[in-house]
Amino acid sequence: MSLPDSHPRDGGLAARLAETRRFSETLCEPLSAEDMGLQACPEVSPPRWHLAHTTWFFETFILKPGLSGYQPFDERFEYLFNSYYNGVGAQYPRPQRHLLSRPGIDTVRRWRVQVDEAMQDLLAGEDDPDLLALVALGIEHEQQHQELLLTDIKHSFSYNPLWPVYRPRDDDGAWAAEFRWLNYPGGLVEIGATDGFYFDNETPRHRQWLEPFALANRPSTCAEYLAFIDDGGYRRPELWLSDGWDWVRASGATAPLYWFLEDGAPEYYTLAGRRPIQLHEPVAHLNYYEADAFARWCGKRLPTEAEWEHAAADRPVVGGFVGNGRFHPSVAAAGDEADAPLQLFGDVWEWTGSAYLPYPGFAPAAGAVGEYNGKFMSNQMVLRGGSCVSHRDHLRASYRNFFYPHLRWQFSGVRLAQSMEAPRGPSATTLA
Amino acid sequence: MSLPDSHPRDGGLAARLAETRRFSETLCEPLSAEDMGLQACPEVSPPRWHLAHTTWFFETFILKPGLSGYQPFDERFEYLFNSYYNGVGAQYPRPQRHLLSRPGIDTVRRWRVQVDEAMQDLLAGEDDPDLLALVALGIEHEQQHQELLLTDIKHSFSYNPLWPVYRPRDDDGAWAAEFRWLNYPGGLVEIGATDGFYFDNETPRHRQWLEPFALANRPSTCAEYLAFIDDGGYRRPELWLSDGWDWVRASGATAPLYWFLEDGAPEYYTLAGRRPIQLHEPVAHLNYYEADAFARWCGKRLPTEAEWEHAAADRPVVGGFVGNGRFHPSVAAAGDEADAPLQLFGDVWEWTGSAYLPYPGFAPAAGAVGEYNGKFMSNQMVLRGGSCVSHRDHLRASYRNFFYPHLRWQFSGVRLAQSMEAPRGPSATTLA
Amino acid sequence: MSLPDSHPRDGGLAARLAETRRFSETLCEPLSAEDMGLQACPEVSPPRWHLAHTTWFFETFILKPGLSGYQPFDERFEYLFNSYYNGVGAQYPRPQRHLLSRPGIDTVRRWRVQVDEAMQDLLAGEDDPDLLALVALGIEHEQQHQELLLTDIKHSFSYNPLWPVYRPRDDDGAWAAEFRWLNYPGGLVEIGATDGFYFDNETPRHRQWLEPFALANRPSTCAEYLAFIDDGGYRRPELWLSDGWDWVRASGATAPLYWFLEDGAPEYYTLAGRRPIQLHEPVAHLNYYEADAFARWCGKRLPTEAEWEHAAADRPVVGGFVGNGRFHPSVAAAGDEADAPLQLFGDVWEWTGSAYLPYPGFAPAAGAVGEYNGKFMSNQMVLRGGSCVSHRDHLRASYRNFFYPHLRWQFSGVRLAQSMEAPRGPSATTLA
Amino acid sequence: MSLPDSHPRDGGLAARLAETRRFSETLCEPLSAEDMGLQACPEVSPPRWHLAHTTWFFETFILKPGLSGYQPFDERFEYLFNSYYNGVGAQYPRPQRHLLSRPGIDTVRRWRVQVDEAMQDLLAGEDDPDLLALVALGIEHEQQHQELLLTDIKHSFSYNPLWPVYRPRDDDGAWAAEFRWLNYPGGLVEIGATDGFYFDNETPRHRQWLEPFALANRPSTCAEYLAFIDDGGYRRPELWLSDGWDWVRASGATAPLYWFLEDGAPEYYTLAGRRPIQLHEPVAHLNYYEADAFARWCGKRLPTEAEWEHAAADRPVVGGFVGNGRFHPSVAAAGDEADAPLQLFGDVWEWTGSAYLPYPGFAPAAGAVGEYNGKFMSNQMVLRGGSCVSHRDHLRASYRNFFYPHLRWQFSGVRLAQSMEAPRGPSATTLA
Repeated sequence: MSLPDSHPRDGGLAARLAETRRFSETLCEPLSAEDMGLQACPEVSPPRWHLAHTTWFFETFILKPGLSGYQPFDERFEYLFNSYYNGVGAQYPRPQRHLLSRPGIDTVRRWRVQVDEAMQDLLAGEDDPDLLALVALGIEHEQQHQELLLTDIKHSFSYNPLWPVYRPRDDDGAWAAEFRWLNYPGGLVEIGATDGFYFDNETPRHRQWLEPFALANRPSTCAEYLAFIDDGGYRRPELWLSDGWDWVRASGATAPLYWFLEDGAPEYYTLAGRRPIQLHEPVAHLNYYEADAFARWCGKRLPTEAEWEHAAADRPVVGGFVGNGRFHPSVAAAGDEADAPLQLFGDVWEWTGSAYLPYPGFAPAAGAVGEYNGKFMSNQMVLRGGSCVSHRDHLRASYRNFFYPHLRWQFSGVRLAQSMEAPRGPSATTLA
Repeated sequence: MSLPDSHPRDGGLAARLAETRRFSETLCEPLSAEDMGLQACPEVSPPRWHLAHTTWFFETFILKPGLSGYQPFDERFEYLFNSYYNGVGAQYPRPQRHLLSRPGIDTVRRWRVQVDEAMQDLLAGEDDPDLLALVALGIEHEQQHQELLLTDIKHSFSYNPLWPVYRPRDDDGAWAAEFRWLNYPGGLVEIGATDGFYFDNETPRHRQWLEPFALANRPSTCAEYLAFIDDGGYRRPELWLSDGWDWVRASGATAPLYWFLEDGAPEYYTLAGRRPIQLHEPVAHLNYYEADAFARWCGKRLPTEAEWEHAAADRPVVGGFVGNGRFHPSVAAAGDEADAPLQLFGDVWEWTGSAYLPYPGFAPAAGAVGEYNGKFMSNQMVLRGGSCVSHRDHLRASYRNFFYPHLRWQFSGVRLAQSMEAPRGPSATTLA
Repeated sequence: MSLPDSHPRDGGLAARLAETRRFSETLCEPLSAEDMGLQACPEVSPPRWHLAHTTWFFETFILKPGLSGYQPFDERFEYLFNSYYNGVGAQYPRPQRHLLSRPGIDTVRRWRVQVDEAMQDLLAGEDDPDLLALVALGIEHEQQHQELLLTDIKHSFSYNPLWPVYRPRDDDGAWAAEFRWLNYPGGLVEIGATDGFYFDNETPRHRQWLEPFALANRPSTCAEYLAFIDDGGYRRPELWLSDGWDWVRASGATAPLYWFLEDGAPEYYTLAGRRPIQLHEPVAHLNYYEADAFARWCGKRLPTEAEWEHAAADRPVVGGFVGNGRFHPSVAAAGDEADAPLQLFGDVWEWTGSAYLPYPGFAPAAGAVGEYNGKFMSNQMVLRGGSCVSHRDHLRASYRNFFYPHLRWQFSGVRLAQSMEAPRGPSATTLA
Repeated sequence: MSLPDSHPRDGGLAARLAETRRFSETLCEPLSAEDMGLQACPEVSPPRWHLAHTTWFFETFILKPGLSGYQPFDERFEYLFNSYYNGVGAQYPRPQRHLLSRPGIDTVRRWRVQVDEAMQDLLAGEDDPDLLALVALGIEHEQQHQELLLTDIKHSFSYNPLWPVYRPRDDDGAWAAEFRWLNYPGGLVEIGATDGFYFDNETPRHRQWLEPFALANRPSTCAEYLAFIDDGGYRRPELWLSDGWDWVRASGATAPLYWFLEDGAPEYYTLAGRRPIQLHEPVAHLNYYEADAFARWCGKRLPTEAEWEHAAADRPVVGGFVGNGRFHPSVAAAGDEADAPLQLFGDVWEWTGSAYLPYPGFAPAAGAVGEYNGKFMSNQMVLRGGSCVSHRDHLRASYRNFFYPHLRWQFSGVRLAQSMEAPRGPSATTLA
């Protein structure tokens, strides 16, 4: 990532940095000091920790080595807010982040101010491309944590039967485009990052051979997923991978995360509280096993990441939460372009059938930031596209997100694919 | 507990109630809103939860059934803040209490105000002895949670390497009385509650036969316990109960909870932060296995609860944190009475060798409050005497505290005993 | 145990030893070589391990130190077959005993022959009372393992849906004596071992004060326990200790171990395979929580061990499996004596309400055999009386058996008691 | 697998079946009845279970549906010996297979005889290609279990400090060919099964684009792996995948499974007992994390499965245990052909850097046998080549073995690869 030839999307790196930092705080405005410490499971982090860790990133990787005379705010924070960089040193145990009531939010905010001011000092007149690339990386890193902050607080709130409202929601008459297949002839294609900012795991750009395939024009919807549930989806082992079936039995899952189907109209917990399920929204909060089982029930499969990226190569990024402010998936965005044949970005992260592995010839970035992506290349699956809580500027066709297949707290959904040699499956109307 | 013949220690029950409620809030003054949500393990609860649960107790057991026209503050709180009363209904899972950032502290305080006002209304002119007994029970219940609030926040803070200070501490030149044995001839004695307030588990008063025994005049000190450690105490299985040795190996324990012996002068984490160990203080934060192993290393044993209560029957309650405001154990209090032969209350809870079981003829109180004590009568050991964070008014000779033998987060220590038929052990100077 | 004044029940210690050793092998006759390695959980041991460990006991504690020139069969067995004696050395991990297919049963039997011959050599002309006491201890130790061998193989077999038959069973028309209460005035009584063989944990004999009480004339029956189940016993938290209710929910238990109530006539797995439940048998395979909950449902309680022993002091031992060869509990034995008012031995181990703790003045035996009993004095409850798979010679009024309260694989049942001050409960006919 | 166009390697399917069935029993000859029940962890199965399950396969999938009038040996075995086929029905819990002492080995052998005779009856004159394909599948299935039987008994034996010898071993002066790189230009290649027998997961044959790469001429050796250990391999997080480092810390691993490096000359547990490590043998019993970390330490990487298969396409299968009877890895076999540039089969299973996922257009076989491979396509990594305990007839270039990345009980090792754009790494002599 942040290789020497990557650069901010506009020239104003300092301005982008300031705006990004501000936006993290804006996202915390609906939260009380007490909310800022919530951590419902090891995978999620408290909002306060996100504010601190993103600050740690700039202090550790840029200010300490790069700004002469810089005095760290508190030397003990190097340990407390290191996420997973063994190259920096030991880390405070992740499952205990909720126990760090000190430093409190006021102190964390003072730290942010000190770091922000020092960063602006540093950037004034700076033109070392390596350093600028690190700054760009820090911006993108903070954007990732902005998304995590939202997915994490949603998860932590979901354990509270008072169903806290992060932000009220206007019913927006979500609708889904009519289901269609889009065909691709395959052949020898290229995938991987080209220009603009990218992470190291998107490189090197390289060739792959694709057989002919088709992609759905949109993610599958809540209504389509309900039909799977109603057809016994969670009770039929033949629809599941073996590990997926083990997960179903161990977890007792009968629906996506946050869904309540007990009685009456289906409901879900959202960032706007507990509400009726919007049937035409893309279904979200599926794990890989659920996405895969649903696709199998449809007689289809998940796309590979190469198929997905090939199809996405020339598509505009129109979703994401900056620019729509939705905090919930909606392909309505696609509908805004009446002629849009394909909406790929910013509704839900789409599970692919590809394991998260290095591209041919991949080498991680040098130094401790090389731990950013490369060391996670096992046991995880690639997701593409970005979600309704991703920053729009953060998304691109070559972006490789990755999570363990059992995890559901991201806004993760499913887009159907099929190989063209295989018999074509049920039509869109059957699926809906 | 709170049987019809129990009564407040002074006539002003309403005043005692108001004072007790206020004191809970006073204890939270050093805590930030963020601290109020900390829960380091299932056994401890967040301070905010303690404030809410004690309020729940009055609303559930007194106001709802007893105050005509009383409107609960929020019906959903009945579930959220029920600790373990199956007779009331289901309970929010204990390990997740830290996830209840809502209701926030401001809401909880408004709830407290409503309940306090309603309680004062109720008590004006009330003379139903059953209801007054329930109010007295609620006061004692809140005093128990005041102690828990302090032991719990100490525990949660202890996971923070910034070593938060709950309250600064003046070095007070703690000293320990010279170790002496006090002899008791035994015979047929009576134990159990007599008058004043008591819990149901202290009844009925009954006879027990005691063989001749001796008790130490004070709890064992940090210095004495360090000698046990230095003599290989944590590496010698012959000193330990089998379950205790299993605990040593599984936990890797080498010292009491909160102690740091790595290098240099021994330190511990206290409510005043991390500090040098005060050698003449009573050793605290031992579990039953440690107390038992230490006593065995001394060639002694733990007292039974009948021995302890018999010896304590005519002793004044001089310790506890109201009246000394120490928040740490210190037998200095005993020294304040130059002629005091025996200091039994308010330094550390003293593990006895008695399992927590019903007294002959015991019957729990009627209704859901009957779950207060009786249903816990298995797998726990009795502790006697009260600690430096117990309210002095809360302690009495017949008081039976109880915890599982592996737990250490209370201010729990050890007082030596011996049977008089056995050869007398090493003298105090040997022990020190 | 095996204190200098204990002695074999007849003068022929060598003959008793030989008979005891032979009987262990007799018990294995129905087992295949494959059965001999079964271990369904850490608490149970494979039959082959029992044969080896009892041999280890004689070799380790008697032959190695006591027989000049004795050559151990295989030095490596000291580690492999040490159960829990830290004073002897490290132990092969208990949960893995089933992995010791080597030494095989043929080798273990050759070891037994060598040890038996050496023991007979040693005993010829030996009159050192300490050594004879150790031999007596070894005999009683092997008798304990004979019982465990049967309870353990029953448990391991119970996981096999082929329901292996250890020994076929003749239906014996079990019947239960009519339920009656027997009254005892209490007062200052003595309990603890007097003469004959006894373990150290039965000493010293000492005084206890008892309030007036009553005991049931027989253990409760399967029919009585079924009434508890039918009345919602496993669904009503108010009947259970808190730890017991946690156990019910975590285990999903709805009946005693080995019972099948799904449909049709109730069945259980027995050493004679899966069969219809004999309703008039004493109910067996209860844990402490179940015994306690059943007694509470009856409006009664469990006896204390002092009450039990006081009542048993002058009663003959008429049960146990040698002399009836039943391998299942049956108070029919009591009926054989038409005038027997009380049958206390050899049907089921009876949970008492007493924790397993040292008697006043208790000191364990010297040396590594001191680990036999004393180090287990925490977290366990005392059972009295002996079961249908206990050797009759092994039982006595002062015998203290002990198990953790959640365990059910022993033939453990319940005898009701009540305090005489309390109102008398339902009559026998109600209970039946 | 076993698609209609697959066929036995020679025409004598009935003879091959008989020979395969006999060979399973031959492999059990060194085992006692007691050994036959060993199961050290859920991943391994008792030898007796392997004999039964392979028999179950023929009875369930071929005889029951295909042989008119066939009477199953015991209907209850359908449940007991079903491994994981939900399409057949429920399964006896895998971790408890060691508890099935019944049916004993004599009964299992009688079952084998009945099934073998019925299979020969069925095959006489049979020419239905689907049925013959199922028989071929059953043969290959039994060959897989022959390998598992050996890896499993090695694992179970390894918990016994008597270090049981399955078969004595002649020291064979193992040597390793000199390390060399073999270069491949890449391009558009084809992988996947062609003719002969194959499993469904090897299909469909399809195109892949490969960048230029190089493969090591042989697996890495114990000596090379020792150099990694000596260089702090297990203490340096920068060499490990994140999940791998978590595994190192959780497991405390410091060497391959079965290795003892404590003091003196390095030793390992083998099927010939505990012995000095043969330094020139291929290192075995690595998990994926270890293989990956070793390769990273070398500055290299693991091959992808497409690279491996492309290189193996024209290589003879010369290893495996039939034909060398070694039961331990040795590239000596390669040395037998003095001019062999590349030895790929039958020493150790070689971890690839490829996740086990469906080939483009993959469809599992129809019916319950479709659960054989396809449902495991998540969270596992592909291994190629076969081990010293694989049957030589069972191996082929397109074979895809798969295991979870943390597992080590297979004979699994590492072959280095590198991308040709990357700078060439240390030479063979550096590695050794």
